[in-house]
Amino acid sequence: MITRDELREAQAYAAEQLATAGVVLTAAEREAIEVADFGLSRLREQGLMLLVYVNTDRYCAKELVLYPGQACPEHRHPPFDGMPGKEETFRCRRGGVTLWVDGRELVLRAGDQFTIPPDTLHSFRAGPEGAVVSEFSSASRDELDVFTDPDVQRATVVA
Amino acid sequence: MITRDELREAQAYAAEQLATAGVVLTAAEREAIEVADFGLSRLREQGLMLLVYVNTDRYCAKELVLYPGQACPEHRHPPFDGMPGKEETFRCRRGGVTLWVDGRELVLRAGDQFTIPPDTLHSFRAGPEGAVVSEFSSASRDELDVFTDPDVQRATVVA
Repeated sequence: MITRDELREAQAYAAEQLATAGVVLTAAEREAIEVADFGLSRLREQGLMLLVYVNTDRYCAKELVLYPGQACPEHRHPPFDGMPGKEETFRCRRGGVTLWVDGRELVLRAGDQFTIPPDTLHSFRAGPEGAVVSEFSSASRDELDVFTDPDVQRATVVA
Repeated sequence: MITRDELREAQAYAAEQLATAGVVLTAAEREAIEVADFGLSRLREQGLMLLVYVNTDRYCAKELVLYPGQACPEHRHPPFDGMPGKEETFRCRRGGVTLWVDGRELVLRAGDQFTIPPDTLHSFRAGPEGAVVSEFSSASRDELDVFTDPDVQRATVVA
């Protein structure tokens, strides 16, 4: 659970980070920035801000924004609708992010990218400057994500 | 056909425009910027610079860069491998672009986006400031594109 203040503050932070990375947003997009705390109620440590540009039944593009040191908990994207799970490419735009993929650790800085195969466990954490990461992928169904921590809930409750 | 000087000049222009739009590229990516004249030998009027981030058999992401007034000739993306043609979302990052889709005219400026259905005729032209446009799509097979002008050749010859 997050408070309404945490939601607004995180949206403002994400919009500012995206602007600094050269990303121009419409007013409606700024309002639509998703703030995820994964049901863990420690947004600054475990969480993520997301802006979805497009998500059709074939492909998806998003921007991910993380506070300094903020992490996205380990999860995988399982098969659905007769297709392999979501395949996704992370491209770091600003700051830095450490990525753990199937036991392997990688550090992405601005200009670096990595593609995560379908149905593969992964997690990531921003460095001390935070991070802006573009995500290009096959169709996204966040509600189907399988998290390792049984306490995670993908939908965020705003108090 | 373009000259080696035109190629280098166009790559340098595209890299500079992307940098101004906040896009950080590696040295290898700057070298790999594709310059397309569509076989028309009038690059500044008919052409496009492309940087492909990723193109799997499921999705693709690119940056498109256009000189002021430069246009991409009318074409469509036909079905292949038993799938509908390429579906693509154009998101303008910088400058402006006029898009013609199936007889409809739209102007995209920074922060605007539009999704073009599969197998649908479209063309676009940058405004007086040029344009940087992100393209998110299903898998891309440029060599299958069908152009209205029979003189177009998708592969560029460098003299």
